[in-house]
Amino acid sequence: MSNQEIIDKLLSGEMKLYQVDKEVSAKEATDIRREFLEQKYDLELSNIANYTLDMERASARNIENSIGVLQLPMGIAGPMKINGEYCQREVFVPLATSEGALVASINRGASTITASGGVNARVVSDIMTRAPAIKCDGVGDALKVKQWFIDNFDELKQIAESTTSHGKLIKIDPILIVGSYVYPRFVFSTGDSMGMNMVTIASEKILDKLAEETSALHIALSGNVCVDKKPAAINIVEGRGKSVIADILIPKDIVAKKLKTTSEAIVEVNTAKNLIGSAASGSITTAENRNGDLYFSVNLPDLPVATVGGGTSLEVAHEGLEILGVAGSGHAREFAEIVASTVLAGELSLVGALAAGHLARAHQELGRG
Amino acid sequence: MSNQEIIDKLLSGEMKLYQVDKEVSAKEATDIRREFLEQKYDLELSNIANYTLDMERASARNIENSIGVLQLPMGIAGPMKINGEYCQREVFVPLATSEGALVASINRGASTITASGGVNARVVSDIMTRAPAIKCDGVGDALKVKQWFIDNFDELKQIAESTTSHGKLIKIDPILIVGSYVYPRFVFSTGDSMGMNMVTIASEKILDKLAEETSALHIALSGNVCVDKKPAAINIVEGRGKSVIADILIPKDIVAKKLKTTSEAIVEVNTAKNLIGSAASGSITTAENRNGDLYFSVNLPDLPVATVGGGTSLEVAHEGLEILGVAGSGHAREFAEIVASTVLAGELSLVGALAAGHLARAHQELGRG
Amino acid sequence: MSNQEIIDKLLSGEMKLYQVDKEVSAKEATDIRREFLEQKYDLELSNIANYTLDMERASARNIENSIGVLQLPMGIAGPMKINGEYCQREVFVPLATSEGALVASINRGASTITASGGVNARVVSDIMTRAPAIKCDGVGDALKVKQWFIDNFDELKQIAESTTSHGKLIKIDPILIVGSYVYPRFVFSTGDSMGMNMVTIASEKILDKLAEETSALHIALSGNVCVDKKPAAINIVEGRGKSVIADILIPKDIVAKKLKTTSEAIVEVNTAKNLIGSAASGSITTAENRNGDLYFSVNLPDLPVATVGGGTSLEVAHEGLEILGVAGSGHAREFAEIVASTVLAGELSLVGALAAGHLARAHQELGRG
Amino acid sequence: MSNQEIIDKLLSGEMKLYQVDKEVSAKEATDIRREFLEQKYDLELSNIANYTLDMERASARNIENSIGVLQLPMGIAGPMKINGEYCQREVFVPLATSEGALVASINRGASTITASGGVNARVVSDIMTRAPAIKCDGVGDALKVKQWFIDNFDELKQIAESTTSHGKLIKIDPILIVGSYVYPRFVFSTGDSMGMNMVTIASEKILDKLAEETSALHIALSGNVCVDKKPAAINIVEGRGKSVIADILIPKDIVAKKLKTTSEAIVEVNTAKNLIGSAASGSITTAENRNGDLYFSVNLPDLPVATVGGGTSLEVAHEGLEILGVAGSGHAREFAEIVASTVLAGELSLVGALAAGHLARAHQELGRG
Repeated sequence: MSNQEIIDKLLSGEMKLYQVDKEVSAKEATDIRREFLEQKYDLELSNIANYTLDMERASARNIENSIGVLQLPMGIAGPMKINGEYCQREVFVPLATSEGALVASINRGASTITASGGVNARVVSDIMTRAPAIKCDGVGDALKVKQWFIDNFDELKQIAESTTSHGKLIKIDPILIVGSYVYPRFVFSTGDSMGMNMVTIASEKILDKLAEETSALHIALSGNVCVDKKPAAINIVEGRGKSVIADILIPKDIVAKKLKTTSEAIVEVNTAKNLIGSAASGSITTAENRNGDLYFSVNLPDLPVATVGGGTSLEVAHEGLEILGVAGSGHAREFAEIVASTVLAGELSLVGALAAGHLARAHQELGRG
Repeated sequence: MSNQEIIDKLLSGEMKLYQVDKEVSAKEATDIRREFLEQKYDLELSNIANYTLDMERASARNIENSIGVLQLPMGIAGPMKINGEYCQREVFVPLATSEGALVASINRGASTITASGGVNARVVSDIMTRAPAIKCDGVGDALKVKQWFIDNFDELKQIAESTTSHGKLIKIDPILIVGSYVYPRFVFSTGDSMGMNMVTIASEKILDKLAEETSALHIALSGNVCVDKKPAAINIVEGRGKSVIADILIPKDIVAKKLKTTSEAIVEVNTAKNLIGSAASGSITTAENRNGDLYFSVNLPDLPVATVGGGTSLEVAHEGLEILGVAGSGHAREFAEIVASTVLAGELSLVGALAAGHLARAHQELGRG
Repeated sequence: MSNQEIIDKLLSGEMKLYQVDKEVSAKEATDIRREFLEQKYDLELSNIANYTLDMERASARNIENSIGVLQLPMGIAGPMKINGEYCQREVFVPLATSEGALVASINRGASTITASGGVNARVVSDIMTRAPAIKCDGVGDALKVKQWFIDNFDELKQIAESTTSHGKLIKIDPILIVGSYVYPRFVFSTGDSMGMNMVTIASEKILDKLAEETSALHIALSGNVCVDKKPAAINIVEGRGKSVIADILIPKDIVAKKLKTTSEAIVEVNTAKNLIGSAASGSITTAENRNGDLYFSVNLPDLPVATVGGGTSLEVAHEGLEILGVAGSGHAREFAEIVASTVLAGELSLVGALAAGHLARAHQELGRG
Repeated sequence: MSNQEIIDKLLSGEMKLYQVDKEVSAKEATDIRREFLEQKYDLELSNIANYTLDMERASARNIENSIGVLQLPMGIAGPMKINGEYCQREVFVPLATSEGALVASINRGASTITASGGVNARVVSDIMTRAPAIKCDGVGDALKVKQWFIDNFDELKQIAESTTSHGKLIKIDPILIVGSYVYPRFVFSTGDSMGMNMVTIASEKILDKLAEETSALHIALSGNVCVDKKPAAINIVEGRGKSVIADILIPKDIVAKKLKTTSEAIVEVNTAKNLIGSAASGSITTAENRNGDLYFSVNLPDLPVATVGGGTSLEVAHEGLEILGVAGSGHAREFAEIVASTVLAGELSLVGALAAGHLARAHQELGRG
């Protein structure tokens, strides 16, 4: 079949988008689907068409029904001095965004940080979790299932770890019971990968064992006690992904020179905005006035980042990790420290700007609403 | 100065990254900064270098210290039939992601939707907000400031609207008092733009007036009662951005054929996962078994989307909006309906897959942890 | 039937506890039920038997299957100077509790308050709410039901107010839609009574009208968007019951003399405990160091109190209200100001004690774990 | 000094309320303070004066500045059949309240429960917690303090347990770090007492040791990560006090006969009200339709109850515990099971009444707004 024949079948509905992959290579399929849209809607999609990434590999791992790429502008902030446990050097941080003023704001924070001697960063925990929902007859049975998880931990650990070379089942905690539902939270260490898929597969093996040995019913592999991709109290309390904290003490004169404000004003803004005015979401920022100097911290309790696996194999992501010096195995915690430091830089700049009263003007110049 | 001379100054620290823009065009500055990184770290950044977007324009609006672009794979899902108020047709939805299985999952939901006659979508409210933090002497003064906002609403509306051609100040509500702090929530309609910057600028004008007429102190333009970029109860209650709901009734036989499961199983999963197991975050999903047919809805109380302004001027974003038929003015609510429908497609597919027990296997085939 | 004959029937299970009321007076029924328990379990319940309240009246309004009373120790704190809008005088506050150290703690706060010239208190809103859950076919119908409430507001107001002499329907806001459910929040002013029953009855009349005119199904009179008897974000945002704020500025020397600590220490404790360490619950406390003086506030967004109706007719409750000078009609907001002032007294004393480091010792002396 | 002389000094302000205790017995002091109020405000407080409890003992443990007692009407619900681990029998439950219809509602639930063969109840965890706020220099120091708690656990356990005969330090978990603050959560088992004071005293000893060995500053004995007396996510996740679950399966015909409704209607109400409409507060109710029968559960994650210590020594409280057969040592978990069963009875009756549509009418008859 020629490309146009395939496009004609797509236009007539005879062929589905994903079926194109069976006829031609991923790269050709990408062109065909995009041309189908161009013909169907009489469009020119030349920017989506412009890419250098390896679409064969991406189609196997990262995308289905590919038509090209999104181009998102990338800027660079730095140098930023980091005094971490894993990262002890100056870095330049690449950032992809379409929000004007964001890179400039982080750059200003990075400059303040470096002038103050650097930002401290520490990974305080490093886990990945899955918490399926399991259905029992009632609370009596649910307690037995909870006990089953406790009694068989060693065997379940062996089963889970047989599915992965890097993942380790650390504990099953908590094991929540709500009526006839049990939500055991499987807690894994995952090495350098983010580990969500690893943990999903290992958890399924555990649930197969549960099905063999008990009458409990596995309702859903994710019971939203994990909790993936939304702020949740349990993640703040128990940690998830990497829990990272960054903090810094900024001398009084640097607060004045770099941020054009005072420690008092920053503490006031932070109290009004981040403590009183804000419901606790996934991060917490604190500020203290220490005899005119500014103590400032950010706390990221749930940062699921990785330097291998998932999207990190995409060419541009890889180049970004290379700029940071954290590409490949053995760098995940170093990367986490850099991310926390960058968040601190941005938050410091934002709160500083509010304290100095010029946020709106900055947006007025750099962005258009 | 030659490019290499600039790079040498960057390498020696004599010149800052943002100063390059003063010497050469935005496009050249992009190349110079990227080459600086290549030389400093002995890297090849050829993928970041590959772009077609207009970097002159992007540098004025969307990015600072540009070095190129991020390429994020883009796939297409559909056709999906939408029965909205603004969108009444079949659409193909472009999606940029590096998460394998996501496009396939949404595609499965879209196929189910279309086979069921389409998904209903409605924009139930459409506002943008800013809630500054204001400091008073105590609760007595705070009540006077609250009353000042109520008494002067007409004049404040005029002042706010003088800064924008599309924005309208609808109300100031609620006006929260916490101790000596007042948090008035300015509620705007913003036409087709997302409006965050518009609202920021208009709010600042109102606060200038407050400063002229009272002794109240404006602490921060954003007091985190807005609430921007995090799930918050106030946004669920009061709405923010576009509040959109999508729902559908799926006949019993299509549940069986397309999702390989039953309405009972889906309701069970949804109860265990999205109601009991989940803290309410920014969206809510409901499912009902109606005599074997499945009623399914998603509710997005805070969807800040636009078809003009901000990142929509980037070439690839524009092409994406063209595929959806919603590029340019007059299409924001139609776009919101499409987004809600797409979220329903994805949620339906995910819950359906959990109900049918094959999430982990799908990830095993399509993604690598 | 003699009393013992009735008791015998209760013992044998021939008669139910509530059936005793049909045979004898409420006072006699109280004795019979208590004696039944004494005989059944071979107990002496002489303290429960000791009461002076009018059991005939209580049985009609406050209790069923009465057996006597609970005696809870009552103490008195004060004098406390209040500078409210409704309450402008010194009060002695009666408090019933079994928690040792509580009255002493509030007394210490009251003493600090009076020495500082009094506490400010303001009722910032005064409403009562009911938010039923209504079921529709889908989001399309739900929007029509929402519009029906908006369009028929004047008639619904008339219907609601026909059921009560004091209640006024102020607004129906918000009208939340979640999938096929609609939650209209009926907001009433209720005069001096707490108004929960008044509002329940009026809301039912509105729902009768809805049933007549539409096919929407009224699922539950309370959809937990009200929200009664639990902390809820919607109550903080929208207010419920009386929203009261109390604040005070305490001179530096009184902080030292009465609380044995400093403003700095109190602000530090309050930040660590009430802002950072605490999820926002139903009240918020703020503290500021103002040149050594202490600014301190409590914010009660949802205080459902009354001086008539409900439990206020019980003799001891009435005597308590008389001590406060707020018994009977026309005093509900004054009472709210006193409650907020008392909460501030207790919170001030507690945070002050933590700041001075002697909470545990105070408990060690006054209470026994 | 005669009583009237003391009263005169109170009236003139020469003497403070608490100083009366130094002149006369607690019982006389109670009379004097009450008479002072009677003379000051020209009142008759004869109901407050009516008590049989031992005021000498109460003044040492439960109340300061006593003036008498609150009389709260007490009713009885039952019999209710409980199939617990500790409680396996029928009970009659005494309830003190001024809310009309409450006892009747719980009685209706109890009757349904008993007709269904009884309610299951299980204590799933039983702990008490204290989480002080500790201040460090920054995250580096904070991590050292965290490690200090982990390394010295055995010695800290010994120190803590030296202050109590019943309490055991089980673990210190989690140890949260937020910026420069550390919040270690001390988790104790406390035998039959509620244990809040026991835990407070033991925690202070641990902090004394911390002060000796490190430079960390103990800011507040309670950092609101405990969390006492407010609903908090951490208590739901980690448990606190006794975590109790009660559930039951009610045959279809008993749902119809006792609750005048159907399982479908109850599940519908519970979904609309307790799952979708309600933010998760301190308890969770679930309902399932199992082939027409009703499965129903309540979950109390944080129930701090005791049968010795605190208010349990008050005469009426003691008589109440005797009615339940749980007075004195060794009965705390049995009591917890009874409380959970009673909550289930009340919740079942309420949701059943909403399902049958007659809540408002019940309130109309029994209560007055």
